[in-house]
Amino acid sequence: MLYLLLIFTPIVIALEFIHANHIVIFVISSVALIPLAKLIGDSTEQLSLYYGSTLGSLLNVTFGNAAEIIIAIVAINAGLIDLVKASITGAILGNILLIFGLSILAGGFRYKEQYFSQENVGLQSSMLFLAIIGLAIPTILVNTLNVKGADVSIENQTNVQIVSDILAFLLLAVYISGIIFTFFTHKHLFSTQLYSNNKKDQKGAESEKEKHGTVVWTKKKSFLSLGLSMVGVIVVSEMLVGSVEVTARQFGFGELFVGAIIIGIVGNAAEHSSAIVLARKGKIELSIGIAAGSGTQIALFVVPILVIAGIIMNQPFSLVFTLFELVTIFLAAIILNLIARDGTSNWFEGIMLTFVYVIIAVGFFFIK
Amino acid sequence: MLYLLLIFTPIVIALEFIHANHIVIFVISSVALIPLAKLIGDSTEQLSLYYGSTLGSLLNVTFGNAAEIIIAIVAINAGLIDLVKASITGAILGNILLIFGLSILAGGFRYKEQYFSQENVGLQSSMLFLAIIGLAIPTILVNTLNVKGADVSIENQTNVQIVSDILAFLLLAVYISGIIFTFFTHKHLFSTQLYSNNKKDQKGAESEKEKHGTVVWTKKKSFLSLGLSMVGVIVVSEMLVGSVEVTARQFGFGELFVGAIIIGIVGNAAEHSSAIVLARKGKIELSIGIAAGSGTQIALFVVPILVIAGIIMNQPFSLVFTLFELVTIFLAAIILNLIARDGTSNWFEGIMLTFVYVIIAVGFFFIK
Amino acid sequence: MLYLLLIFTPIVIALEFIHANHIVIFVISSVALIPLAKLIGDSTEQLSLYYGSTLGSLLNVTFGNAAEIIIAIVAINAGLIDLVKASITGAILGNILLIFGLSILAGGFRYKEQYFSQENVGLQSSMLFLAIIGLAIPTILVNTLNVKGADVSIENQTNVQIVSDILAFLLLAVYISGIIFTFFTHKHLFSTQLYSNNKKDQKGAESEKEKHGTVVWTKKKSFLSLGLSMVGVIVVSEMLVGSVEVTARQFGFGELFVGAIIIGIVGNAAEHSSAIVLARKGKIELSIGIAAGSGTQIALFVVPILVIAGIIMNQPFSLVFTLFELVTIFLAAIILNLIARDGTSNWFEGIMLTFVYVIIAVGFFFIK
Repeated sequence: MLYLLLIFTPIVIALEFIHANHIVIFVISSVALIPLAKLIGDSTEQLSLYYGSTLGSLLNVTFGNAAEIIIAIVAINAGLIDLVKASITGAILGNILLIFGLSILAGGFRYKEQYFSQENVGLQSSMLFLAIIGLAIPTILVNTLNVKGADVSIENQTNVQIVSDILAFLLLAVYISGIIFTFFTHKHLFSTQLYSNNKKDQKGAESEKEKHGTVVWTKKKSFLSLGLSMVGVIVVSEMLVGSVEVTARQFGFGELFVGAIIIGIVGNAAEHSSAIVLARKGKIELSIGIAAGSGTQIALFVVPILVIAGIIMNQPFSLVFTLFELVTIFLAAIILNLIARDGTSNWFEGIMLTFVYVIIAVGFFFIK
Repeated sequence: MLYLLLIFTPIVIALEFIHANHIVIFVISSVALIPLAKLIGDSTEQLSLYYGSTLGSLLNVTFGNAAEIIIAIVAINAGLIDLVKASITGAILGNILLIFGLSILAGGFRYKEQYFSQENVGLQSSMLFLAIIGLAIPTILVNTLNVKGADVSIENQTNVQIVSDILAFLLLAVYISGIIFTFFTHKHLFSTQLYSNNKKDQKGAESEKEKHGTVVWTKKKSFLSLGLSMVGVIVVSEMLVGSVEVTARQFGFGELFVGAIIIGIVGNAAEHSSAIVLARKGKIELSIGIAAGSGTQIALFVVPILVIAGIIMNQPFSLVFTLFELVTIFLAAIILNLIARDGTSNWFEGIMLTFVYVIIAVGFFFIK
Repeated sequence: MLYLLLIFTPIVIALEFIHANHIVIFVISSVALIPLAKLIGDSTEQLSLYYGSTLGSLLNVTFGNAAEIIIAIVAINAGLIDLVKASITGAILGNILLIFGLSILAGGFRYKEQYFSQENVGLQSSMLFLAIIGLAIPTILVNTLNVKGADVSIENQTNVQIVSDILAFLLLAVYISGIIFTFFTHKHLFSTQLYSNNKKDQKGAESEKEKHGTVVWTKKKSFLSLGLSMVGVIVVSEMLVGSVEVTARQFGFGELFVGAIIIGIVGNAAEHSSAIVLARKGKIELSIGIAAGSGTQIALFVVPILVIAGIIMNQPFSLVFTLFELVTIFLAAIILNLIARDGTSNWFEGIMLTFVYVIIAVGFFFIK
C-alpha cells in the first residue's frame, strides 16, 4: 500500500526538470523518500532469508538506516553540515520520544498496562548514553576553549576535527562490540527481532502465518530492488537537499528546525508507523525494540559512518553540536530511562514522552 | 494549636498602619501566613467532605497550593518577577530535598528501615522531570541566543515570552492528563491520600478514630472560612511583598536567597511539619506523597498558572530561570531518584537529602 | 612481588641528587610510588589486626587513600592547584570507569554473567552524587558570576573560597555520617570488606587459608613500616611534583591531562591491579567495592581534607573545577548507575565503561 507512493519518485524527477517551485519539490521529494526507504528495508529483509538467521539479522541491522545515511551523505556533500547534525539530533529525539511515546500511547488506549523486558531497554539506554558522552566531548571542548581563549583558532578547529575522528572510531568499535554481544556471545538474552530496527522484519514477526503467505523474492530480484531503491534514494535526496534551503527561508524556519523536526520525522516515517501498529497489537516489546534500537543505532553507527564519509569526501564533519541539541538529547535519554525502567507502560507515560517531544520541538522552532 | 498564630494577622495589619520597621513587618507577616495557609487547607478539606471522594480529592489537590499561588500573584503584580521565580525554585527544592530528607530522617531515628511503594515516586519523578525539561527550554534558548548574537534583542525577548506561554499550556495539559490518570483511569494504583498534598487530609488519614472525633463544619462555615482565609493571605502577602526588598537589603541577602530559601521555607512550613509528624509515626508513604506530590504540583500546576496570570495582568512572567536555579533543581531531581528508587529509606538517606539542600542553600546565599 | 619495585625509591633519590633528566625522574618516581602506596596499605592492614574488626576497618578506610593525600598535599604546597584538582577528577573517573570497567571485563571473559548486591552500589552512587553536587556549586557559582559581571572580582574570589571551605566541612560531615551508618547503625547490610578499598584487606579476604599462611607482623614492625612508607611517599612525591611540569612541557601534554590521566592512573595502580585480579576470580562484588568505594572516598574524604590542608598551609584550595572536569564526572556517575543498577555484569558492560574512560581521556588530551 505504501508502495503506491513510489509514483512520487518519477513525479519529483519531472518537477526538477521543469524547475518547479522549490517548496513543491521539497514536499514531493519528502513523500517520495518514505516508500523508497521502505523498499530498501524490504529488499534487505528478502535478501536476509538467503543467508541464515545471524548473517540475515546482521544485514537487516546494517541496512536498517541505509536511507538515512544516503540522505545525510548527499547533504554533507552539498555542505549542509549543520542541517545533517540537526537531522541526527532529530532522528534520535524522534525515536526515543515521539515513536516510543506514540507507541505507548497507542497501546495504552487499548491495554490498561503493557509489560516489556527491561533487559533490552537497559542495554540500549547504556549504549545511547555512551554515545551521548561521545557527542558531548567535542562540544564541551569547543565551549571550554571558547571561554578560555578569545576565539577558536584554526589550530583548535583542526584539533576538534581530530577529536571527532578518533571518537567516531571509538563509537564504531563499541557498536561492533554490541553486535558481537547481541548476536554471538549473549544471543540467548535477546530475540533477534528486538535488536533489528528494520520495519518489515518486525512486521513479519507479528504472525508467522502472515509471513508464510507473502511471496518470497528471488535472490536476483532482491539484489536488484535493493540497488534500485538505493539509487532512487540518492536521486531524490539530491532534490530534497537542493530545495531545503529555499523552502526553509520562505517559511521562516531555522535550519535546526528543518533538520531536527521535519527531516527527522520524514526520515523515520516508516519506523513510526510500524512501531505504532505493533503497539496497538499489544506487541509493545517490539515497538520499544524499534524505537530504542533505532535511536542507539543512529548515535553509534550512523554518526561514525558520517564522520568517516566526511573524511573521505574531504568535507570535515565534526561532532560539535549546538548546546541546545546536546542538552535536549541528554534530557530525552534521562526521561526515557525514568519511564522505561519499571518494565510497564500506560497511556500517561506515552503522553509524557510525546509532550517532551513537543516541548523540545517548540524550542527548536524558535532557534533561528 | 497552629491557629493561635492567626493572632498575627491583625497584628501585622496594625503594624502596617503605623508604618512599623520593614524587618518587623516581614517577620510577622511570614509567621501570619503559616496558619492562614493551613486554614485554606482545612476549609477545603471540610468542604470536600460534601462532594464525594473523587471531586473532594480534586478540590484538595487544586486548593493545596492556593496560598503559594496568591503570594506569587501579589508579588508578580508588584513586579518582583525574579523573586517569584526564585520562590518556585525554592519550593521545589524544599519539597523534594528538605521536607523529604527531614521526613526520612525523622522516621529513620525511630525505625531502622522504612518501606514505601515505588509506583507513586516513579510517577512523580517522571512528571517532575518533564516539568524540568519544560523549564529548561526557554533558559537554554536564551543562553544559546546570547552566545550566538551579542545581546538579547527585543525580538528575542518577545519570542522567549511566546515560548514560555506555549510551554505553560503544554505543562498544564500534562498536569490535567496526570489528574485523569490518577483519579480516573488508573485510580486503583494510588490511594487518594498519596496524591493530595493537603495537610489536613493527610493528618486525618493517620487514624480514623481521630477523624471521627473532630467536629465537622457546616457547608456554609467551610465556604466562609475558605473565603476569609484567602482574603487574609492576599492582605498579608501584600505586606510581606512590600517589606521584602528593604529587609533583604538590610540583611545583605540577595533576591535569589530570599526567594528560594526564606520564602521557600515559609510558604511550605505547614507541609514541612505535617510530613515530618507523619514520618515519625511510621507513615513514610504519606510523607513522600506530600513531598514529591507538592514538588510536582508546583512545577506543573503553579508555574503555568503564574504564566497565565502574567498574561492577564500584563506582567510578562517568562520561564527563563538562572542557570544556578535550573541546574540545582535538575541535580536535586536526580539525587531524589537515586535515593527513592529502591523503595526503602533509612536515616542516612535522610541526612544525604538534607545536606544536599544545605549545600545548595549555601550556594544561593552567595549569589547576589 | 610488587615490593621489588621498592628498589626504585633509593634510585630516584640518587637520580635527584645527580640532577638527572626530569623525564627520567618523573617516570622512576611514578613507578616508585606504587610499592610505597602498597606498603602503607599492608602496614595498616597488619596494624588493624591488633584493634578489633570495627576499629581495624576504620583504620583501613582512613589510611586507604593516605598515599593520594600525601602526593596531593606536596603538590598543593608547590602551588600546583590545578594539577591536584585534575588528579582528583582523574582518580574519581579512573575508579568508577576504568577500574570498574576493566574488572567487569576481566570477569566477563571468564563468566558469562556475574552478580553483585545492589545495596552497596546504590549507597555509593548516592554518596558520589551528593559529592558531585557539592563540587558543582562553586563552579556554577563562578560561571554564573562570570556571565553577569564582567570579571571575577577579588571579593568574589574570597566568596568562592568561603563557599569551598563551608562545603568541605559539609562533605566531611556526610562522610562521617556514612561511616557511622556503615560501621555502626546498619553494619548488617555491609560486609566490612566491601567498604574498605584497602588492597591487602581485599586480597586477604579471598581465602582465609592464604591469610593464615602469611606472617603476622608485630605491632612495632607495623607502626615502623607505616611510618617509613609514609616518609617514602613524601620524599618521592616531592620529586614527582618537581619533575612534572618540565615533563609535561616536553611531551606537549596539558596540565589537565597529566593530572587526570597520568597521575590518576599512577596513584590508583595498586587498586587497579587488585580489583582486576579479584574480578577474574569471580569476586566481582569485592572489585565493585574497591572501585565505587574508592571513588566516593576521594570525593567525600580526600577533597575536604585537601581544602582544610589548603587553609592550614595558606594555599587556598577552592572547589572550582573546569566545566570539562565537572561534566565528565557527572556523566561518568550516570553511566555507572545505568550499568550497575541491574546487579549483573557481562563483558560488554565492561567494554562500555572502559570506552567511556578512553573517550573522556581523549578529550582531556586535547585541552591545553
